Amino acid sequence: MTEKPEILNALAANASAVSDVLDALLRECNGHEKKLMEAMRYASLAGGKRVRPFLVTASAALFDVPPERALRAAAAVEMVHCYSLIHDDLPAMDDDDLRRGQPTCHIAYDEAMAILAGDGLLTLAFEVLAQVATHPDGGIRADLVLALAKASGHEGMVGGQVLDIYADEHDLDLDEISRLQRMKTGALITVSCAMGAILGQATYVERAALDAYARDIGLAFQIADDLLDVEGSEDEVGKKIGKDEDAGKATFVSLLGIEAAHAKAHALSEQAQEHLAIFGEKADSLRDLAKFIVNRRS
Amino acid sequence: MTEKPEILNALAANASAVSDVLDALLRECNGHEKKLMEAMRYASLAGGKRVRPFLVTASAALFDVPPERALRAAAAVEMVHCYSLIHDDLPAMDDDDLRRGQPTCHIAYDEAMAILAGDGLLTLAFEVLAQVATHPDGGIRADLVLALAKASGHEGMVGGQVLDIYADEHDLDLDEISRLQRMKTGALITVSCAMGAILGQATYVERAALDAYARDIGLAFQIADDLLDVEGSEDEVGKKIGKDEDAGKATFVSLLGIEAAHAKAHALSEQAQEHLAIFGEKADSLRDLAKFIVNRRS
Repeated sequence: MTEKPEILNALAANASAVSDVLDALLRECNGHEKKLMEAMRYASLAGGKRVRPFLVTASAALFDVPPERALRAAAAVEMVHCYSLIHDDLPAMDDDDLRRGQPTCHIAYDEAMAILAGDGLLTLAFEVLAQVATHPDGGIRADLVLALAKASGHEGMVGGQVLDIYADEHDLDLDEISRLQRMKTGALITVSCAMGAILGQATYVERAALDAYARDIGLAFQIADDLLDVEGSEDEVGKKIGKDEDAGKATFVSLLGIEAAHAKAHALSEQAQEHLAIFGEKADSLRDLAKFIVNRRS
Repeated sequence: MTEKPEILNALAANASAVSDVLDALLRECNGHEKKLMEAMRYASLAGGKRVRPFLVTASAALFDVPPERALRAAAAVEMVHCYSLIHDDLPAMDDDDLRRGQPTCHIAYDEAMAILAGDGLLTLAFEVLAQVATHPDGGIRADLVLALAKASGHEGMVGGQVLDIYADEHDLDLDEISRLQRMKTGALITVSCAMGAILGQATYVERAALDAYARDIGLAFQIADDLLDVEGSEDEVGKKIGKDEDAGKATFVSLLGIEAAHAKAHALSEQAQEHLAIFGEKADSLRDLAKFIVNRRS
């Protein structure tokens, strides 16, 4: 019997702590609008590996940031991630029925409530960051807001989703697919590490090292995702697979081939770990995550 | 020939200044995602009276806040207002084709782009507030973000939109309609004045006076809107009228009657002006706005 890898325990412990913070921040209400909070909770307390929150807390831990602060920033990032999943799954967008193994938000509720639950989560993310409990220094709170907004807005995640829709009808080449990835999924991964660095008032060199690490694992994560869409099973992945191929959509796998895609993901994971050298052993959990990302089955 | 009322000139001048700032903040881009920025610009540069931005700049002017700072906060509030109109107009929500006399965003573009343009505007609003150009003090920037997020999220505008959907199928009484108004439209009007006060580092008493003013004109504004829906003409108002009555939906007018609704709106306008006494003549433009709100034809 092989022992459960340490990273899985670390991810699970962090996911549980983040869920507790989300649970406390998403307070139920009794007015006629209570279904809204139900939908917000449904979409954000449903599990998931919580990779982005892990990046926030593991990056913050490099600088000995108090965990309760890091967890608030981690919860804010997860709210943005969950809002983006709700809106991406809508009939007008990817029209997905299944997410993390359960009905998507607009199936469980309805389209209007799904749109509004997404809007509510996005807005609450910024509210949480701007609260004094996140950090006593207002400049740091504002920097967190600024970083998360830039990463998730039209120059980042939202712009990336537009590129993804464009890709449904156009053949993208490797440069274009790479830009799509950097905007749609990479930006939120990079800002997760950056928020740890902001909370920890990292030096320029430390911040640059984390940025380089995050860019590499972000790309590795996407390539691994594309591989799972080809090689994974629906049960394990928790969402429909084979979609990109069915849609004739270019991915890293279709452009590079399966073998080269595996090789590239692993090379990126190695390179990501090298960027962490300046942090010594303190960065072991980030190294473990870089390994995990390219070996995961879901 | 009657002279054009001064408030109309003041509103027009402010609207023009806000549009210039929005135009500069919404920079066009050349990537495949350029349609997104087009849609964001389409929905936010189309005119409108810009009442909320006027409240920000007029409130900030009470405390001699430099106009370039107030205009950035004003632009952020307008982005949130415009995002809410885009999402409210969607087929899954109010399903409106006409807004400010032109096709709504999902008609001019498509549903996916409209959802994303709204998301992009909401996100950019917080980005703009968090930037140093809005105020050199990070604590003030964070306070602006916090105030706008609270007003526009699940406890404010987004929650209010859920109540409005609920109202389509339930008969609300006056208390419930009032709560709906405070959340759906009142919160953003109140925070517009509050942001001027935050930028101006107002005292507690000054802040409370502005809050009271804003609550009164917010309610007066909604009653006047309900009256326009009954008494206005589609040409003047720039959107479909008679909708609430056709839908059998309770409004301040249906609950109070036309005459009492007029009387209440005017009483609120008077009361709002009285709250401004501590500011003396400096608050004349806010007083003029309170008068205008209940006398407007569109």
